[in-house]
Amino acid sequence: MKHTHPKMSRATWALTAICGFTFALGVLAEPALAQPENKAEPKSRRRVREVKPVEITPGQVSDLQKLANDRKLTVEDIMAAAKTYLPSGRHDDYLIFASGGHSGQMFVIGVPTMRLLRSIAVFTPEPWQGYGFSGEKDPVREHLQINGKEINWADTHHPALSETAGDYDGEFLFIGDKANARLAVIDLRDWETKQIVKNPITISDHGAAFVTPNTDYVVEGGQYAVPLGYGYAAAEDYQKSYRGMVTFWKFDRKAGRIDESQSFAIELPPYWQDLFDAGKLASDGFVFGNSFNTEMATGGVEQGKPPFEAGTTQRDMDYLHIVDWKKAEQVFKAGKIEKVKNFAVIKLDTSIAEGVLYFTPEPKSPHGVDVTPNGQYIVIAGKLDPHVTVYSTEKIKKAIAEKKFSGKDSYGVPILDFDSVKEAQVELGLGPLHTQFDNQGYAYTSLFLDSAVARWSLGGEYADKHPEKPWTLVTKTPVQYNIGHLVTAEGDTVSPDGQYLVAMNKWSVDRFYPTGPLLPQNFQLVDITKNGTTMPVLYDSPIGVGEPHYAQMIKADKLKTWTVYPELGWNPHTQMIDPKAPKAGKEGIVREGSTVVVNMTAIRSHFTPENVEVNEGDRVIWRITNCERSQDATHGFCIGGYNINLSLEPGEFTEIEFTADQAGTYPFYCTEFCSALHLEMAGYFRVKPAGATVGQATK
Amino acid sequence: MKHTHPKMSRATWALTAICGFTFALGVLAEPALAQPENKAEPKSRRRVREVKPVEITPGQVSDLQKLANDRKLTVEDIMAAAKTYLPSGRHDDYLIFASGGHSGQMFVIGVPTMRLLRSIAVFTPEPWQGYGFSGEKDPVREHLQINGKEINWADTHHPALSETAGDYDGEFLFIGDKANARLAVIDLRDWETKQIVKNPITISDHGAAFVTPNTDYVVEGGQYAVPLGYGYAAAEDYQKSYRGMVTFWKFDRKAGRIDESQSFAIELPPYWQDLFDAGKLASDGFVFGNSFNTEMATGGVEQGKPPFEAGTTQRDMDYLHIVDWKKAEQVFKAGKIEKVKNFAVIKLDTSIAEGVLYFTPEPKSPHGVDVTPNGQYIVIAGKLDPHVTVYSTEKIKKAIAEKKFSGKDSYGVPILDFDSVKEAQVELGLGPLHTQFDNQGYAYTSLFLDSAVARWSLGGEYADKHPEKPWTLVTKTPVQYNIGHLVTAEGDTVSPDGQYLVAMNKWSVDRFYPTGPLLPQNFQLVDITKNGTTMPVLYDSPIGVGEPHYAQMIKADKLKTWTVYPELGWNPHTQMIDPKAPKAGKEGIVREGSTVVVNMTAIRSHFTPENVEVNEGDRVIWRITNCERSQDATHGFCIGGYNINLSLEPGEFTEIEFTADQAGTYPFYCTEFCSALHLEMAGYFRVKPAGATVGQATK
Repeated sequence: MKHTHPKMSRATWALTAICGFTFALGVLAEPALAQPENKAEPKSRRRVREVKPVEITPGQVSDLQKLANDRKLTVEDIMAAAKTYLPSGRHDDYLIFASGGHSGQMFVIGVPTMRLLRSIAVFTPEPWQGYGFSGEKDPVREHLQINGKEINWADTHHPALSETAGDYDGEFLFIGDKANARLAVIDLRDWETKQIVKNPITISDHGAAFVTPNTDYVVEGGQYAVPLGYGYAAAEDYQKSYRGMVTFWKFDRKAGRIDESQSFAIELPPYWQDLFDAGKLASDGFVFGNSFNTEMATGGVEQGKPPFEAGTTQRDMDYLHIVDWKKAEQVFKAGKIEKVKNFAVIKLDTSIAEGVLYFTPEPKSPHGVDVTPNGQYIVIAGKLDPHVTVYSTEKIKKAIAEKKFSGKDSYGVPILDFDSVKEAQVELGLGPLHTQFDNQGYAYTSLFLDSAVARWSLGGEYADKHPEKPWTLVTKTPVQYNIGHLVTAEGDTVSPDGQYLVAMNKWSVDRFYPTGPLLPQNFQLVDITKNGTTMPVLYDSPIGVGEPHYAQMIKADKLKTWTVYPELGWNPHTQMIDPKAPKAGKEGIVREGSTVVVNMTAIRSHFTPENVEVNEGDRVIWRITNCERSQDATHGFCIGGYNINLSLEPGEFTEIEFTADQAGTYPFYCTEFCSALHLEMAGYFRVKPAGATVGQATK
Repeated sequence: MKHTHPKMSRATWALTAICGFTFALGVLAEPALAQPENKAEPKSRRRVREVKPVEITPGQVSDLQKLANDRKLTVEDIMAAAKTYLPSGRHDDYLIFASGGHSGQMFVIGVPTMRLLRSIAVFTPEPWQGYGFSGEKDPVREHLQINGKEINWADTHHPALSETAGDYDGEFLFIGDKANARLAVIDLRDWETKQIVKNPITISDHGAAFVTPNTDYVVEGGQYAVPLGYGYAAAEDYQKSYRGMVTFWKFDRKAGRIDESQSFAIELPPYWQDLFDAGKLASDGFVFGNSFNTEMATGGVEQGKPPFEAGTTQRDMDYLHIVDWKKAEQVFKAGKIEKVKNFAVIKLDTSIAEGVLYFTPEPKSPHGVDVTPNGQYIVIAGKLDPHVTVYSTEKIKKAIAEKKFSGKDSYGVPILDFDSVKEAQVELGLGPLHTQFDNQGYAYTSLFLDSAVARWSLGGEYADKHPEKPWTLVTKTPVQYNIGHLVTAEGDTVSPDGQYLVAMNKWSVDRFYPTGPLLPQNFQLVDITKNGTTMPVLYDSPIGVGEPHYAQMIKADKLKTWTVYPELGWNPHTQMIDPKAPKAGKEGIVREGSTVVVNMTAIRSHFTPENVEVNEGDRVIWRITNCERSQDATHGFCIGGYNINLSLEPGEFTEIEFTADQAGTYPFYCTEFCSALHLEMAGYFRVKPAGATVGQATK
């Protein structure tokens, strides 16, 4: 058999010579080869840009004009393009952390480019991230259990970044699951979900997650009332047996975990609680929540009764919930609670007696509750009312102190007199939902029915910051279509940045090429740098991987993200080196009875060991350390046919466990393209049929 | 109890009056209200743009210059921005259908904006799309079973659009699962996965999916050799017992499904087959596949042997596989096959005897096999060789006819003499992987180690289309970093469009804000409109939801996407009206023994019925029709605590089935924001504890 060589150039020979160093071959492909340590920017390739002032020549103007005409762009389009474009290697100024709706995940989007930088797996197993694919004892899938069943999706609604003194500190991220009343904790050092807690007393939530100004508590408000504790009760027993709730999850920042034993809930009437927001500065110590279905309708369209959509919208006013959480904390610590499913609950009567809970009327079908940055005002949008209603913290405190009540609700909760606590009402347009703030004394409210963003002027100490009369509509910018939430830069903090606003539109209809009958959402970037009536839409960004509800936008340089894990053998579940992590040179296969422990390392471009043989029926514990130290040197690890796939970031250790219940010959390989010889980073897992002896030598 | 009304404007009253029509309330929020029928563009809101020629004024030049300097942009950056920007409502010209790597999904990206328009769930359950969350008899999860286990992820590598006469026809999309040797069929009318077939004879594939020019067959080539049929064999028995394969899945276009009974595989030596490409025009009837590990190395770094990365790269030449599939089809139809796991396999000896299979040498560690648009040449990149090697179809045919063999491999496969079939070798740089084509007679090859895209000139009948000498390197454009595949507009067809090229880079390192230790990939858009050496990178696009391997780029107007399902009660699994689909006015709950059938409709903003009560232990069959006819009027449907979430597109019918095994009160609600009263689109599913009688009246 004879092969003819192709004519070889000098480069061929050089490469062939290099390839002689077989073990080192993989690193040829490494862009960050010169970096022995964790370092974000490999010098050798980083695009160096001379930043000298631009002068656009007449020839360039002519080119640009021709391009604009060819592509049917206006000059405004070109300005918008230039405001949102970043050349290769330049980073976005802000990051949006957006919920992923019923995808169960989180999405991170850069601003102003509006590029989706990453999804973070939270409630839904996701194999690219190796999230939930580590075998039968997967810690993620264990976290997802509710009453013995894996509930492996969620309806994520409202993310909250951790705060210090009312400012995003970039350390943690929280997100609630409306469908199953759960809360997840994400560590922003490695952008991985660390904990999922299930609210044991209710099925659904909506007002989650919101944090108190120092992240002492993460607030989770309910949505659809149920018998607390997962019980059954007939529709006729609604008023008697169903209840709402708001839960205060204690966050232990040092541990990076919620401490369930120090958490408590407050029982509420069976209205459908909606959103919550924590007071800050002037209103620190309070949380505010809105509600609907104070009618306590139970539907029944199937029996000719009004459907929920009608039954829940009959009353002119619902109730703004005012909760004194610092008092509630004292009540909890004093043990004035009952346990429901072993979870501490402050009963309604206790809250009333201890001054924990007050109501005040809010216009029909309210939606959104947003505290101004100085904490002095609370803004409630009435989705079936063209106004936003602004309440004064000072007036609320005074009304509580002076017991200015207009009555009690049917459960005995005192109702603060509306006119005594109201600061202003501002007519904005149809379907106001949510409000955000900037650094110029403006508020921005989404108008669902108008499909617009309204800018309006705040009063009080904000009145000097803008030229307009306080509490008045300034301008509206149309968006397309059907905006839900909106988010401004650092918009939920004590010091918003202004600059950018993103309209989180729910329908995109014709904005993008139709992607089947299921369409993406449309995030529109709005320029709010100029005050007054100038507020152009700059960019449309389709979100075709889920339906985000709410988002927070943080200055990117606040985060202290790890680019590789701090040490080799790092366990992301414990955030420390794992003593079980295999070390290079110490790999091997150890059998104890019918349990086989595989100690493996991964480095470009091979796994050690490459051949693993067990008996059918053996229990397999497989430990892998990614021994890379270069940024982006992630390896995947999968076993065909065994539903296992890991994403091993540089330094990461993972342990998988499963029973080798199917005999056969199963390739394993690296699933993350890592080097020129990535395809060769593979091996065989052989499962010998029952009865045969094991051929593999043990160490 | 007294409530004070806020002062009501005329708008408030108007809205309140409208809201009196309770049942119609939800449609207030509908942007497409005026559309009784399926229609893509609601007239009322579509942004109307006057397209008149732009003349950029000196004032505007000055504004643009200031903006450029503020944002540190060059004039080239502004040109790139203007080349990739689209104002609101303007659609992308091309769509990229990209595999999602180990996310198991597909991603669709618009070009030139590089926006991710949508993900398509394929191998991984995904709740936003309601994919795999319809209870215990979920058809998706049934498709995902392998040997009785749900394998609910995949490593998707190479998508293929269906072709007619070698041109993308926009009808179907195929994608392979490397980790588990599966193939999925997606219908491009509704962008949903319709079928997943498991290759019963092997565990892994790589050369999938590739289609023959009229999509008669979808080709799936193997990767890591195993004993065919999922058997066990020791490493020492590798040469005797392990085999490669290439499978031809028969596609029934009318049914929109693969016909497994008309499909067959060809047994191959236990080399690791890599990529395949179907011949076209001049080479129609052939498929070509490359291979590596013709050394038949079995690794063993754990025993001090060379690891796979070294063992598989020792030989100077591997084998290009040349398969005459039209002959193979005749052999299959003549019954000259053996059944392995009940699947038709043409044995190696038969292939050799019947002239189905030939080899020819290809430079070491080849990667990528790409047939030129005219079918006359086959391009093989040698990832450890700086050349691409170009083979001539005509010469291959001649060598076969004249039996110009240089020998046989150890399994008896005739090897065509290399020099007799080689047309050219072109030196490009380090790490060439894959090649695409344009309409100017150029080829484009990704250089993994150089991190560059090489443009080189084709010869033969292409020589007249460009000014350069045939078979020569024209220019290289650096990309960042580590490009794998690349894709040009219509680049795998008989008539590529040129215009755009996307470099699918594997590492992004410092290109974006670091997203934890796990980084996105980086798709870079390259402008290939000009010939010669001008080939600028226009845009960086992070892909942070998976690791795409390969993609195809189709002219968007070729697709005939449904914007809503054709009729009310449409079942996407059968692509026809389902007789079981509930109709408006005919809803109800029917009990038969311990089985309860719920017939439900969904329309803004209510479900009918809203109260469903069953006994603990009942079997529940729940049928829902979305009665909307407006584009984007999707409803979700979830039951808290029961791991059920549906995405019901306009007209869609879905049936779910589960056992009500946990007593309690479970809210169900619409998970897709659909109207102003979306939150009120809810109801209660009550499961009465065992022993109690059912309160719900049956119809």
